[in-house]
Amino acid sequence: MHGIVLFAHGARDPEWARPFEAIRDAVRARRPEFPVELAYLELMRPGLEEAVQGLVAKGAAAITIFPLFMAPGGHLRNDLPRIVQGLREKHVGLPIAIQTAVGEVPEILDAIAGWVLASVD
Amino acid sequence: MHGIVLFAHGARDPEWARPFEAIRDAVRARRPEFPVELAYLELMRPGLEEAVQGLVAKGAAAITIFPLFMAPGGHLRNDLPRIVQGLREKHVGLPIAIQTAVGEVPEILDAIAGWVLASVD
Repeated sequence: MHGIVLFAHGARDPEWARPFEAIRDAVRARRPEFPVELAYLELMRPGLEEAVQGLVAKGAAAITIFPLFMAPGGHLRNDLPRIVQGLREKHVGLPIAIQTAVGEVPEILDAIAGWVLASVD
Repeated sequence: MHGIVLFAHGARDPEWARPFEAIRDAVRARRPEFPVELAYLELMRPGLEEAVQGLVAKGAAAITIFPLFMAPGGHLRNDLPRIVQGLREKHVGLPIAIQTAVGEVPEILDAIAGWVLASVD
């Protein structure tokens, strides 16, 4: 079973997490057979380690981390690989893949451009 | 003529701006009649003031700012309204609207959820 981690930065304001919770809920609603967890780099919980632990406990045999960041800055280039390296050492035999940032996905860029144009038209 | 500002955080690494440049290029390609500029909060140029000035110079009679942030944190709740207040005082008679964050747009959340599921399926 493939486990999904939706990885966001985190913020002090709980309201900030709403969009990420909405994405998690949409993924769950469409395909309830995939276990899915949010994880935050800082300021919010759970962190990546706790989220991966939760997915493994639910029977995930492989995990993909989706960085819900518009663009790949230092957090995705440095912090995320470092944390994932630690997770791989802890969960030997569990494949953990990291996807690109949201802003590197052509279909999502298209959706954003469409929203912009629909708003001014 | 309606001017479009695509507003992003900014980063030290020029590569970071690629997704935002791609969105700007997609908007331009689809509807070249709308002047569109990127603007950054910090670390990159132009800033909002320079971008709005550029759009006014191109004949924009109204401007909408699209925050290309996944979620509305302190930058959108505090910094952006403060900067826009200053712009409104400077450009009297120029309507300047602020759109929601990307992560508050249902069609974009759908596109993100679709990307996640297409990646693990």
